[in-house]
Amino acid sequence: MSLLVVGTVAFDAIETPFGKTDKIVGGAATYICLSSSFFTNKINLVSVVGEDFPGAAIQMLKNKSVNTKGLQIKKGEKTFFWSGKYHNDMNNRDTLETQLNVLENFNPLVPDEFKRSEFLMLGNLMPSVQKKVLDQMTKRPKLVVLDTMNFWMDHFMEDLKEALESVDVLTINDEEARQLSKEYSLVKAAKLILQMGPKYLIIKKGEHGALLFSKTSVFFVPALPLEEVFDPTGAGDSFAGGFMGYLAKTNDISFENMKRAVIQGTVMASFCVEKFGTQKLTEITQGKIDIRTKELIDLVKAT
Amino acid sequence: MSLLVVGTVAFDAIETPFGKTDKIVGGAATYICLSSSFFTNKINLVSVVGEDFPGAAIQMLKNKSVNTKGLQIKKGEKTFFWSGKYHNDMNNRDTLETQLNVLENFNPLVPDEFKRSEFLMLGNLMPSVQKKVLDQMTKRPKLVVLDTMNFWMDHFMEDLKEALESVDVLTINDEEARQLSKEYSLVKAAKLILQMGPKYLIIKKGEHGALLFSKTSVFFVPALPLEEVFDPTGAGDSFAGGFMGYLAKTNDISFENMKRAVIQGTVMASFCVEKFGTQKLTEITQGKIDIRTKELIDLVKAT
Repeated sequence: MSLLVVGTVAFDAIETPFGKTDKIVGGAATYICLSSSFFTNKINLVSVVGEDFPGAAIQMLKNKSVNTKGLQIKKGEKTFFWSGKYHNDMNNRDTLETQLNVLENFNPLVPDEFKRSEFLMLGNLMPSVQKKVLDQMTKRPKLVVLDTMNFWMDHFMEDLKEALESVDVLTINDEEARQLSKEYSLVKAAKLILQMGPKYLIIKKGEHGALLFSKTSVFFVPALPLEEVFDPTGAGDSFAGGFMGYLAKTNDISFENMKRAVIQGTVMASFCVEKFGTQKLTEITQGKIDIRTKELIDLVKAT
Repeated sequence: MSLLVVGTVAFDAIETPFGKTDKIVGGAATYICLSSSFFTNKINLVSVVGEDFPGAAIQMLKNKSVNTKGLQIKKGEKTFFWSGKYHNDMNNRDTLETQLNVLENFNPLVPDEFKRSEFLMLGNLMPSVQKKVLDQMTKRPKLVVLDTMNFWMDHFMEDLKEALESVDVLTINDEEARQLSKEYSLVKAAKLILQMGPKYLIIKKGEHGALLFSKTSVFFVPALPLEEVFDPTGAGDSFAGGFMGYLAKTNDISFENMKRAVIQGTVMASFCVEKFGTQKLTEITQGKIDIRTKELIDLVKAT
């Protein structure tokens, strides 16, 4: 099944306790596309970059079966840039700089041939932009997943709540679940959030795993215990890419299959954090994914 | 099989965001005995209290099949007292007051009839006292488990390291694993700690579950997602009690069976935190334990 991915394609500069990068290619949609490309080869991208964005990076996406017809390239403008610094525990980061550039007036245009995509991943972006994409679909996708973050809750909560009414799955982290629901207990938070529109909620807890909630069930998958977490940037987007890629590949949106998809998302995130930026996602193979999937399943298996 | 439990029997005064208690009965050994009593009825206790300790609390332990012959009652002295306050996230607490009292000169005496106990749980205490108990055993127990905390690492690291050389399983929390190993990554920390003596290491991560490491394998069990965590006091000890009680009941110390024991420990801890102090542990039934065990197994089950 085809997967439409909306989100940022960007430059990042990252500093962690292990080193720092100059401007490297990043952005939510980049991670989502790379990660999902291991599961499906019908990936449609809607995003925007400036004239400064390297053609080689676009070609890299094309090589991964990503249809970039919906990637606007704005003449005379600059690509979205974010730089951040992670602290020792890797769970907290400071944003050092944000240059919105082309994102400031981003008007997402969904090419006609994308408008009947069966799966829609609304990567982290301004909620009104996410909604605009959904509204352009000529056929309601089989599954719509929305990722967001605290920034939009701080400044655009009403827009976010409006967008949430139209989606099937929301993915956020634990602190964002607490902020959105005003409940500390994640179980209580999930109950409230599932009254806001989404039928399913995924709460990402970083190194502590992820929870998948429906209105009646809950599933948990731990993160793989890793020797080294090198750079957490893109982990959540790699998770989303694995989750959506697996669902699009299997074309089964039952809760049971979503469990498997959460496992695949976790596996993809575990690779992502082992090197700076998208590097590791460009190096792995299907064989490595299979091995790690088995490790993750075995990690919680008691007979 | 018989289980020898060493640890504090104490008074606690607890403050959480949900309320506060006056002096109530607590202490590591109290929680361990209560929790393990659901799995085995051969529990031997070695501890010390003052003359102020209520006979009814000792009778309560006896009613749970705990042999209190090794519980010294010091005439004219006072029972160990701890008071603490939990903050909003329940993962951090401040110690408000510690009165060592009878613990100051505690010389543990293992009654002869306890000296061949097959399972030995060295609850959180001064490491040299834990070692003294092990040294009194006439037959090396089948399994020796030691629980400790950051306080002993801060002030008695050498004694702790000496005690560690003689134990089979160490249980600590994530911060303590980092402190003991000087490694941030828990995977690396576990490797180093497993060179200090223990064959197995359990890292307790509170609401984020627990990891069981051997030199070659790792197993993870999540915490049950709870609507409300009321009072985390005693959760680690309830975990230890469930873990040891299950092993003593099944008399199987294979890694596979330890996985099941970690699940039982997690179930017992999940009950403990739902009410103040030991209250919930005195209210539950085998039926409730069975239901929650199934919930925990199902939580990570993907088919």
